[in-house]
Amino acid sequence: MTNPVLVEVIRGPLVESRHRGAVAVCDAEGKTVLAIGDDAAAIFPRSAVKALQALPLIMEGAVERFGLSNEELALACASHSGEAAHVAGVERMLGKAGLDPSALRCGAHWPVAQAAAAAVARSGAPSPLHNNCSGKHAGFLCVARALGVDHADYWRPTHPVQQRVRRVLEDFTGATLGEAQCAVDGCSVPTWGVPLRNLAHGFAKFATGRGISAEHAKAAARLRQACAKAPWFVAGTGRFCTEILQLLGERVFVKTGAEGVYCAALPGQGLGIALKCDDGAGRAAQAIMAALIARFVPLAASERAALERFVQPVLRNWNDFEVGRMRVSEMLA
Amino acid sequence: MTNPVLVEVIRGPLVESRHRGAVAVCDAEGKTVLAIGDDAAAIFPRSAVKALQALPLIMEGAVERFGLSNEELALACASHSGEAAHVAGVERMLGKAGLDPSALRCGAHWPVAQAAAAAVARSGAPSPLHNNCSGKHAGFLCVARALGVDHADYWRPTHPVQQRVRRVLEDFTGATLGEAQCAVDGCSVPTWGVPLRNLAHGFAKFATGRGISAEHAKAAARLRQACAKAPWFVAGTGRFCTEILQLLGERVFVKTGAEGVYCAALPGQGLGIALKCDDGAGRAAQAIMAALIARFVPLAASERAALERFVQPVLRNWNDFEVGRMRVSEMLA
Repeated sequence: MTNPVLVEVIRGPLVESRHRGAVAVCDAEGKTVLAIGDDAAAIFPRSAVKALQALPLIMEGAVERFGLSNEELALACASHSGEAAHVAGVERMLGKAGLDPSALRCGAHWPVAQAAAAAVARSGAPSPLHNNCSGKHAGFLCVARALGVDHADYWRPTHPVQQRVRRVLEDFTGATLGEAQCAVDGCSVPTWGVPLRNLAHGFAKFATGRGISAEHAKAAARLRQACAKAPWFVAGTGRFCTEILQLLGERVFVKTGAEGVYCAALPGQGLGIALKCDDGAGRAAQAIMAALIARFVPLAASERAALERFVQPVLRNWNDFEVGRMRVSEMLA
Repeated sequence: MTNPVLVEVIRGPLVESRHRGAVAVCDAEGKTVLAIGDDAAAIFPRSAVKALQALPLIMEGAVERFGLSNEELALACASHSGEAAHVAGVERMLGKAGLDPSALRCGAHWPVAQAAAAAVARSGAPSPLHNNCSGKHAGFLCVARALGVDHADYWRPTHPVQQRVRRVLEDFTGATLGEAQCAVDGCSVPTWGVPLRNLAHGFAKFATGRGISAEHAKAAARLRQACAKAPWFVAGTGRFCTEILQLLGERVFVKTGAEGVYCAALPGQGLGIALKCDDGAGRAAQAIMAALIARFVPLAASERAALERFVQPVLRNWNDFEVGRMRVSEMLA
């Protein structure tokens, strides 16, 4: 099955590039509300399921035990930009669990935010704290400490922490996750292949608390609220996930993942959204998600106006000249 | 027409992402040797035609007049990484033409090379010299000076420099280039939409000197030789264009462009290559070009082995774990 073109990138008089993809929107009972392209194919959700990966943090009592704040819970769900307060927050989480940054096994990379990268360059080199996944890893380490297990190998698929994550993903998505679905993510933890429509179903459960245990429902609500209260910690300055959470609060939880994935939970509509660009393009995935939010969430005129720059982004060059724009397919409208 | 999948990105047990695209390989008479996908569609070649954009530099006598070196000619054809010697070379070119960096109108961006970006961050902020197109712009300024015209607006489509560039592109590609084909590039000069097969035809002429004037043929050979002699200046440390030029010298001229474009000239085979990934992905375009070089250029075993890491790249994560690989379509083999 060939997925349709969902985003065109226009420069001057021509369509310069095209992005294909698939979209699934489901309710908590698993009913498909919208399917575009192959919604049965398994995809790696990558960082788009960090909020599900963070659920054991609440389920195992780590939040109370270590007194984690909303900001720290948001960091556990985050792909952060490596800005100073992100880094400080992750270090603080680790300290609350009696650990230091040497426990992180995510690897180091330069901060996603250019200004933060420049600041790091002036004082040294990036550490694992700057890795966009360091909050998720700090969360995993908190779970290991709460469980009272050796934390050294917390990232391995066989470790009790990752086994709990796997079971959460199975509970929410309804997919069976074994070796045949398992790959290694950019930060070295397992990423599990899940059919797109199952992922959307999982986020509808995450949005509503229906179809899961009362404990899972409560934990999901806690994480959604934490991210809505500390949106900057979910991504960073100027980033889409942060801007949407700032704009719409608890009405939309949205999270990006590598290789063109986005997931969202719409509590008011009782819906979950999962999408994947065939080619892995984040720019297109973001425009598609913006269009789906505009379609499914009732918005005030000012909110709709604020969203528009993500739905139909203007492309500017190094001199800030307008050189083109992106156009989402009418299929999404 | 739907272009075929030419590159699959594999993670663990699954194909995670897919890149579609089109390929044209032509000889200097315009005969198609290989066509994959829609080779009649117009694409913006972007930086892949910098060597054609640099031809007026030779045609108008700027090389002799200002005593430009091979390194400086290579910079005029380059999308450089903004490393120290690139920046110094561009500044030297400008100085030879009696200008300084304030004449550049390409806009500033951080060096493509991470180490160079960190070095710039330690001492300040990037300038237009660090823009990957600054060598091309310095070349345009040299042409303006050689022509004795006001250089201030050298980047505008109506300026004598850009009109000369447009005519070179028309002569080489056989396409008629007017307003209906014109857009603005990332560095603000015009980029002209050209059918993919015409672009391949143009590079076959660039490779062989056939089908163009003796002056153009001589100038093309001069640029190919300069790039083969100073390959580091065409891109930079570890970059594909540089590595291929270092590996194969004058046997292959290859140049990348934004949004998934690559062009190449194979003098020994009398062929030109042009390719475009539908989605604009550079990673896929590079693998496709590597596969085409392996297909069309007779290689020693050691050369073939050196090329293999570009044809079937291994994907590693932040901990340097092997997490996947890219696989090019058998259509390219």
